[in-house]
Amino acid sequence: MTQRIPVVENILNANDRLAEENRARLDSAGVFAINLMASPGAGKTSMIEQTLPRLKDRLRIAAVDGDIATSIDADRAAAAGALASVQINTGGECHLDAVMLQGALNQLDLTQFDLLIVENVGNLVCPASFKLGTHKSILVASVPEGDDKPYKYPGMYRGVDALIINKIDLLPYIPFKMDYFQRGVEALNPGVITFPISCRTGEGLDAWIDWLLQNVKR
Amino acid sequence: MTQRIPVVENILNANDRLAEENRARLDSAGVFAINLMASPGAGKTSMIEQTLPRLKDRLRIAAVDGDIATSIDADRAAAAGALASVQINTGGECHLDAVMLQGALNQLDLTQFDLLIVENVGNLVCPASFKLGTHKSILVASVPEGDDKPYKYPGMYRGVDALIINKIDLLPYIPFKMDYFQRGVEALNPGVITFPISCRTGEGLDAWIDWLLQNVKR
Repeated sequence: MTQRIPVVENILNANDRLAEENRARLDSAGVFAINLMASPGAGKTSMIEQTLPRLKDRLRIAAVDGDIATSIDADRAAAAGALASVQINTGGECHLDAVMLQGALNQLDLTQFDLLIVENVGNLVCPASFKLGTHKSILVASVPEGDDKPYKYPGMYRGVDALIINKIDLLPYIPFKMDYFQRGVEALNPGVITFPISCRTGEGLDAWIDWLLQNVKR
Repeated sequence: MTQRIPVVENILNANDRLAEENRARLDSAGVFAINLMASPGAGKTSMIEQTLPRLKDRLRIAAVDGDIATSIDADRAAAAGALASVQINTGGECHLDAVMLQGALNQLDLTQFDLLIVENVGNLVCPASFKLGTHKSILVASVPEGDDKPYKYPGMYRGVDALIINKIDLLPYIPFKMDYFQRGVEALNPGVITFPISCRTGEGLDAWIDWLLQNVKR
């Protein structure tokens, strides 16, 4: 299987170059972009549904939603107040890449937005390897996934700029040791900013919204 | 990106041939093998921890655990009663493939086992594309992942021989519409046998154990 490595490296180099082009387009239009990554069902779309109503009077927001199939997520983003939402169906691919985001950017008049939220495919592995050109990478972890995930998926935890711990409302019902989880995070990504949140109850969302606003306005 | 397709197809063909070799080795040794797949944290390892104590006096069981990093899962399988457990660290790869399983089989005296439980990497996308040579593919879904997962990850739901719905003890605390979930499953995989289960309370495990025993003894 060693023959595969050069092919993969070439694809990643090409992807990185295109990610830089995406970033330049976003910057020249004044758009701040985040890449939301997570396991399937950790709550990426719920985060978008909670974030948009809190910001839509202050920022012009577009959403790009990557999925293997369906437009469920883009529909939910539009319903929550995104001025524009673009669905990328990856056709079986397990992650977004810079080419796919380029295709989505082509469908948007970037000068009309302040914030672009990109929702990646639900996957704790592959999305970490493909830069998109966004400014910040955000991981949405969730309590029911278990407290061992930083140890088992180090690539994802190592590379992100912020960590959301969603579904904290389920902590009473699940054996999840927050200390053990956070020690794993700290070893991989020292000092990473962390937001314990419940999309269901709204707990913890204010700190996340403040952080996002501060970053957009920089 | 179209240049990538032939490469991927060649890898898959090579993988399928090797999966057939793995199957032949398992068959000639009289070992029944299952491939457990799921999102990160859906409960694959917990299923193994619940299954082994219920069967270890009736079957000789080995476990193979695939992970990006750590040997947490193989250690848990050994502690739960696997006579042998082999950890495969994929070195960043997001799925097991037939080459990796071949390497694990080489470490086992297959004549000493009746049942081999292979725990794939936590991922709802890529493992579905790589045959290993196991006899049955099992998907462990879980209630906190949400009821839209069959619609969003059709490849995985379409290809499995049995479906476990884990963490049903959390149904009172989560908006999960079982009807909607099951309609999605039925459209992709009509009549697939389904086991609603709680690894935490033990509810529903007997039916799963019976099904597994029947299949091993065939």
